[in-house]
Amino acid sequence: MIDEPSRKRTDARRNRHRIIEVAAETFAAHGLDVPMREIARRAGVGPATLYRHFPAKGDLVAETFADQLAHCVATLDAALADPDPWHGFRTFIEKVCAMQAEDRGFTAAFLATLPDSLATDFARLRDHHVRRFAELTRRAKESGQLRRDFVPDDIKLLIMANGGVGAESPAAARAASRRLVALLLQSLQAHPTDPPAPLPPPVPMAW
Amino acid sequence: MIDEPSRKRTDARRNRHRIIEVAAETFAAHGLDVPMREIARRAGVGPATLYRHFPAKGDLVAETFADQLAHCVATLDAALADPDPWHGFRTFIEKVCAMQAEDRGFTAAFLATLPDSLATDFARLRDHHVRRFAELTRRAKESGQLRRDFVPDDIKLLIMANGGVGAESPAAARAASRRLVALLLQSLQAHPTDPPAPLPPPVPMAW
Repeated sequence: MIDEPSRKRTDARRNRHRIIEVAAETFAAHGLDVPMREIARRAGVGPATLYRHFPAKGDLVAETFADQLAHCVATLDAALADPDPWHGFRTFIEKVCAMQAEDRGFTAAFLATLPDSLATDFARLRDHHVRRFAELTRRAKESGQLRRDFVPDDIKLLIMANGGVGAESPAAARAASRRLVALLLQSLQAHPTDPPAPLPPPVPMAW
Repeated sequence: MIDEPSRKRTDARRNRHRIIEVAAETFAAHGLDVPMREIARRAGVGPATLYRHFPAKGDLVAETFADQLAHCVATLDAALADPDPWHGFRTFIEKVCAMQAEDRGFTAAFLATLPDSLATDFARLRDHHVRRFAELTRRAKESGQLRRDFVPDDIKLLIMANGGVGAESPAAARAASRRLVALLLQSLQAHPTDPPAPLPPPVPMAW
């Protein structure tokens, strides 16, 4: 027979796992504004249990998106280390958009406007990396390859556009995203190649 | 006192108006797959009332999106009449994306995959205009201004990308859409201008 403390630990782990799973789905579908009590309701736990695991909403957001943020930061590190800033810049955009095509939760984490009351470690970390992306942008412009009128905030425009792309299957959605991103990167060049580089193949679309 | 037949006609008109309003909202948010009984429930009418007004789902779809389709067809007519096919093409993309930024219901109507069982007048009409857009594409390529690897289905990719763009206010969303569309059109040129044409101003984005 399982002893009582061990059973409690198992229940707690299961609840924690369930809460994070539900939070990821809910934030992805409805953004980060969903109230904590709604997360608790959907996860089938009481508010007390939710707050025992995650004392503040920022804690829940941070843990829910920890993997995505880490992946994104590693991609940005690689881009900033690239000796060719334009190659670093375009590889970063391609990888971030590919991650997004795989995982819609990433979009929610990336785009969410966090109110000041949630200015948590997660938000501070994200802001830090937004500033690092601005540095990547500056270097790519200085190298003469990124168009001068690109602004760092445009990353949000690209991410939103890429987030709008869907298709019948995950594979078709990835392919559609690749074609869109190739179009967008083409137009971000300071001196566009003529003729333009060929696009990845089109994706047959059902009407 | 209002006579009985007159009251019935008023009720019927009110129901019809309410059903179309609810259908537009529901199709915009959830696509055209929403069952008829769900539309009836949301509109607060019985299924019999719904089917009396709209015997088939295609009838409801057609009436819900009649205005958007008419506007879109007029825009395509103008594009095909343009003596400069590339100017016609880019004006069409700009106008369709601007309509979309104003009205999300338009996106649902444009992108919805209609099952064969709904192969109604609406679907046939849309298919007819998709073929006319393919003709516009062919002419813009023949004029040497649209890149050769653009395919007519790419209009769906552009519409999905544009549909992903949102912002704090309708005015900011329109401005963000204009900037995205300018980027996309730049990359669709067979021989990109160097330096690229300046973009519409960036939209400040909240993080």
